[in-house]
Amino acid sequence: MGEDLDAVLVRYLKDVHALEQQELKLLEAALEMAGDPQLEQVYRGHLLETKEHERYTRERIDAHGASPSNLKDVALETVAASMGLATKAASHTPAKLAAQAFAFQHLEIASYELLIRVAERAGDSKTIEVAQRIIGEERSAAEKIAATFDVAVESSLQ
Amino acid sequence: MGEDLDAVLVRYLKDVHALEQQELKLLEAALEMAGDPQLEQVYRGHLLETKEHERYTRERIDAHGASPSNLKDVALETVAASMGLATKAASHTPAKLAAQAFAFQHLEIASYELLIRVAERAGDSKTIEVAQRIIGEERSAAEKIAATFDVAVESSLQ
Repeated sequence: MGEDLDAVLVRYLKDVHALEQQELKLLEAALEMAGDPQLEQVYRGHLLETKEHERYTRERIDAHGASPSNLKDVALETVAASMGLATKAASHTPAKLAAQAFAFQHLEIASYELLIRVAERAGDSKTIEVAQRIIGEERSAAEKIAATFDVAVESSLQ
Repeated sequence: MGEDLDAVLVRYLKDVHALEQQELKLLEAALEMAGDPQLEQVYRGHLLETKEHERYTRERIDAHGASPSNLKDVALETVAASMGLATKAASHTPAKLAAQAFAFQHLEIASYELLIRVAERAGDSKTIEVAQRIIGEERSAAEKIAATFDVAVESSLQ
């Protein structure tokens, strides 16, 4: 594995790890204002998966002798900047949150697809395996979120 | 059509119209830094479609006797807030732009899905028809963008 390619791979790993951290905050905000048991169940289920994704990606960063970017101080700003959420969460409806969460799954799917391509070039089969497993769960979460659109609209109209 | 429901429908129409305006800026930024003919072709093709989507959704807002929100002054900020783009475009790679564009298609798909559900309740069949046609083109654009992930990574690594 060339040194440069390893540095690029670590950067892509840090990107997906940062997304997982942002998603934890997004899902916590979505849970708070879901206002419907079906919505809550979907968000709560994916919150558990997302905690695992955060750990898996952190472990891959560790395996490359690097450390995750510290999002503590910038987390809210980053979430806001990436999806227009959090700082203005109060102005969002359950429907809008469902749309944002659906889009966020696809931001993650695309980011893991890119990571896989860099990991292939770097010959890091463990990262490829982890990324493929996570993509499967993000796709499944996206489908579950799409299945809540009816109830999310209903909940927003009340 | 109840008066309240009509107001809600107009709000959802304004939301998708604002997304189309944001997408025009996103695609122009993506085109500028694509650095590859295949990427350029995908972004240019969807830019033409997006101009039509902006017009179609504006016409639906007009049909309800309303006016689109004026994004002139807030456009860059809105794009930045919604997808972390534009203001920091210079720090983005073609791979990252492809991921953002892919996610943005899904933000639009979800938003039109929600619009359709509100339009169904409001009995606005013309809006349903327009939204379904646009969703088809957003899905197709998302697939084309996903097909560029290889070349986007290659282009980013150079």
